[in-house]
Amino acid sequence: MGKTATLTPTPHSLLSLLITIIIITSSSLSLTAIASQPSITPPPRPFKATPRFLRHTINPDRLHRIPQYKYETRYFYQQLDHFSFKDLPKFPQRYLISTDHWLGPRRLGPIFLYCGNEGDIEWFAANTGFVWDIAPRLGALVVFPEHRYYGESMPYGSREEAYKNATTLSYLTTEQALADFAVLVTDLKRNLSAEACPVVLFGGSYGGMLAAWMRLKYPHIAIGALASSAPILQFEDIVPADTFYNIVSNDFRRESTSCFTTIKESWDAITSEGQKENGLAHLTKTFHFCQELKSSDDLANWLDSAYSYLAMVDYPYPSDFMMPLPAYPIREVCKKIDNSPDGTSILERVFEGVSVYYNHTGKVDCFELDDDPHGLDGWNWQACTEMVMPMSGGKDTSMFPTYDFNYSSFQEDCWNTFGVNPRPRWITTEFGGHDINTALRTFGSNIIFSNGLLDPWSGGSVLHNISDTVVALVTKEGAHHIDLRPWTPEDPDWLVEQRETEVKLIQGWIDDYRKKKKATFNV
Amino acid sequence: MGKTATLTPTPHSLLSLLITIIIITSSSLSLTAIASQPSITPPPRPFKATPRFLRHTINPDRLHRIPQYKYETRYFYQQLDHFSFKDLPKFPQRYLISTDHWLGPRRLGPIFLYCGNEGDIEWFAANTGFVWDIAPRLGALVVFPEHRYYGESMPYGSREEAYKNATTLSYLTTEQALADFAVLVTDLKRNLSAEACPVVLFGGSYGGMLAAWMRLKYPHIAIGALASSAPILQFEDIVPADTFYNIVSNDFRRESTSCFTTIKESWDAITSEGQKENGLAHLTKTFHFCQELKSSDDLANWLDSAYSYLAMVDYPYPSDFMMPLPAYPIREVCKKIDNSPDGTSILERVFEGVSVYYNHTGKVDCFELDDDPHGLDGWNWQACTEMVMPMSGGKDTSMFPTYDFNYSSFQEDCWNTFGVNPRPRWITTEFGGHDINTALRTFGSNIIFSNGLLDPWSGGSVLHNISDTVVALVTKEGAHHIDLRPWTPEDPDWLVEQRETEVKLIQGWIDDYRKKKKATFNV
Repeated sequence: MGKTATLTPTPHSLLSLLITIIIITSSSLSLTAIASQPSITPPPRPFKATPRFLRHTINPDRLHRIPQYKYETRYFYQQLDHFSFKDLPKFPQRYLISTDHWLGPRRLGPIFLYCGNEGDIEWFAANTGFVWDIAPRLGALVVFPEHRYYGESMPYGSREEAYKNATTLSYLTTEQALADFAVLVTDLKRNLSAEACPVVLFGGSYGGMLAAWMRLKYPHIAIGALASSAPILQFEDIVPADTFYNIVSNDFRRESTSCFTTIKESWDAITSEGQKENGLAHLTKTFHFCQELKSSDDLANWLDSAYSYLAMVDYPYPSDFMMPLPAYPIREVCKKIDNSPDGTSILERVFEGVSVYYNHTGKVDCFELDDDPHGLDGWNWQACTEMVMPMSGGKDTSMFPTYDFNYSSFQEDCWNTFGVNPRPRWITTEFGGHDINTALRTFGSNIIFSNGLLDPWSGGSVLHNISDTVVALVTKEGAHHIDLRPWTPEDPDWLVEQRETEVKLIQGWIDDYRKKKKATFNV
Repeated sequence: MGKTATLTPTPHSLLSLLITIIIITSSSLSLTAIASQPSITPPPRPFKATPRFLRHTINPDRLHRIPQYKYETRYFYQQLDHFSFKDLPKFPQRYLISTDHWLGPRRLGPIFLYCGNEGDIEWFAANTGFVWDIAPRLGALVVFPEHRYYGESMPYGSREEAYKNATTLSYLTTEQALADFAVLVTDLKRNLSAEACPVVLFGGSYGGMLAAWMRLKYPHIAIGALASSAPILQFEDIVPADTFYNIVSNDFRRESTSCFTTIKESWDAITSEGQKENGLAHLTKTFHFCQELKSSDDLANWLDSAYSYLAMVDYPYPSDFMMPLPAYPIREVCKKIDNSPDGTSILERVFEGVSVYYNHTGKVDCFELDDDPHGLDGWNWQACTEMVMPMSGGKDTSMFPTYDFNYSSFQEDCWNTFGVNPRPRWITTEFGGHDINTALRTFGSNIIFSNGLLDPWSGGSVLHNISDTVVALVTKEGAHHIDLRPWTPEDPDWLVEQRETEVKLIQGWIDDYRKKKKATFNV
């Protein structure tokens, strides 16, 4: 089965910004169809990670703990197709805007544009504290436009209509989303007589990719971009397909080799148990599922999902958005796995470990599998069209089962699910990616690629300085776009320093722009 | 009535490359509708230029005089919509290719890509001698992809189907055309194992705009662009709307003030004559039309078209592509106007002058007006959607009637003709244009904007150096993309020098690219 990665859609979830990337397999797109076929693959079977949508796991009780920022909510009517002239209905793009701290047009006050990604823009606004934290200091207007087909920004009047079929979904592409941002901010500036004000882009995860790509494609609109945890190289064969899972594995190994080994050995144990008589019942009991497992693959996917998320959110302080978690949660998982009493089985150890993720509060009696991990979701559509990110599991370097990405299966799954054919080479044609050093050095400027090396997505991003103005900020202890999170008193020094560097670079872009502007117009 | 400019489509014409830009008025798009309304405008009436499509004026006898270059003709199946995922039929894009002089992949041989514009690619290839002339010297592969919806590159199986209505035409946009080029050359390079070979873009007129925009939008694909006579600033209010006609007027005035004045006075004379009893019959006779004029506007448009073309092709040597013409044809026109015997009327003088253009060979007995100057033509569609170039006639600076661009009328005409609404601000949002200095200085590199100041389109192009690598080559005596024409023994020194500079700059881009490549990979 083909396997690809998804940057998690989080349309109905809270507290989701910093964990917006999850893993799916293409198999998830047609799980039913696959499950109905007799299994002919010998163990160890290709590993299939379950997609997890945050909406299934968010506890509404935690809503009130999200920081609330002050903004206005507005709507802008966008062309559904910027690149053709069919007579299509416009759709309302939601955007959040705050002019509270803006220096205004005469002082060339900057405009901070967050590139809304695959989810409700209110949650991204609530979870991108960094932008709000620095706006007053830099005198910036803040605008958070929502990505089309997410949140309230629905074409055709409703989510139901927008997600009806491949034709209605067909305008859900990155190029259209970037054009939305470009048209919106151009109109906004005109209305504010702020044509001369510099725009700075922000984005994390898929939003970080959008920010970097927008800086490259619309440099006349934005003077720079902070692209946090943006895996713009996770396409075709630019980075090895096993990069992601190797980093997840390393995150566990750095805590404990025995923990890594236990997990690595657990897959065979699961498969083997699942093949026994009453094996699935036994697995169901061991892992405390509410309903009996139908396949040991479901359990494997459930575990894969937990490990991958844990790697993304392996933050140095307790966090609480997807799941309430302790600081450095992988350390805690491994402690449980390693420190179980002698005689504890591999499966029991793994259960103890993963409970740190799924049941840190200890309040969960039994676990539910995702009810619909492979529905007609926006990100699944994007993964099946443009955002084809091959993923595989390495042999020795990975704690996951060995596994090769199979494009044909992937394509077939996409066709069965959406009636669409992926274009796996389109993203690199449109935005580049191969030989990125030459390309970015030759034409790019004012981009920060920030990454934490614990983040499994960091392997698909830009990790070294390309020029004086296309720079990589890499933190050894950072995880998925931690720099975009709100300031907290627990921030470690390296994070404080990273953000300070980012602010200085951004301030530098703005100063430089103002100087050039003044030289021309004597503003 | 609104008035806009068109960069001439020449799908069925020969010898057309160097005169690919002509003038239309929006009124031309619904001439019938307008003509049926009673005229209530007092003289001098708003001036309406007739669009002229070269296919109506080309003499097939001259076919054999086109230079013939050696190439293969191939077809590449393109997505009809690169930016959405609807299930649309692919279409065959024609392209011409020659590998005869190519250095090949190992020596990083360059690829010269001519950005096919609004017409049959064979004519562009035949008339872009510069690319063929320099390819052997630089060891380049040459490729001429055709622009979608022109020549043989028709979606939906035929021109008739492609041009059926606004829905089938809707994918005729510049962004789609650029994406075609990007996809084609990426595929071509992969098939030739030439991924590392540098691509250099060429284009004249609308094709020059495509080349410049492609360099800006796909810098990872092309290392530089020669954009000849590319009026990328002829949008919105970036340059004054009367620029084009002022330059045409200056071209005449520089030859003779009295010539300029005679033409300037002729419009009133025409209008006044047209209002007399038998006036149209008299005008028909004076100007030797085969059929009687229905309106003096038709005559005015016929003259406007001639003057505008004459300005574009005011070349320093005899030329013979749209019309056989003497060297510096405007000089000859003005000689005729000025040197007619005393007592010759204004109208007779103007007829004598314009005969240099329409009847240089003296073989034409009577003139035909265009039979269908406002049909469902590709360029008219483009002018009614994205390529909205406002044009007006100044009062004192112009020899044309005073005239203001009226967007509402323009929009209405487009709706009536195509059932489409123009997006007059889209091009500058997508490609930039406002404050082009800051934008190009900040992010652009390796673009040559070449212009001849006699060319009325030069006013909408970039006429000064923006940086070390975004340079303007301006020739005082040059006309419309003369630099792209084939070498001739009559080339004046300044043209030889201009081309030499272009070759040196292009060679410099290639050398620089190879150095950077070798530094990275030690090729």
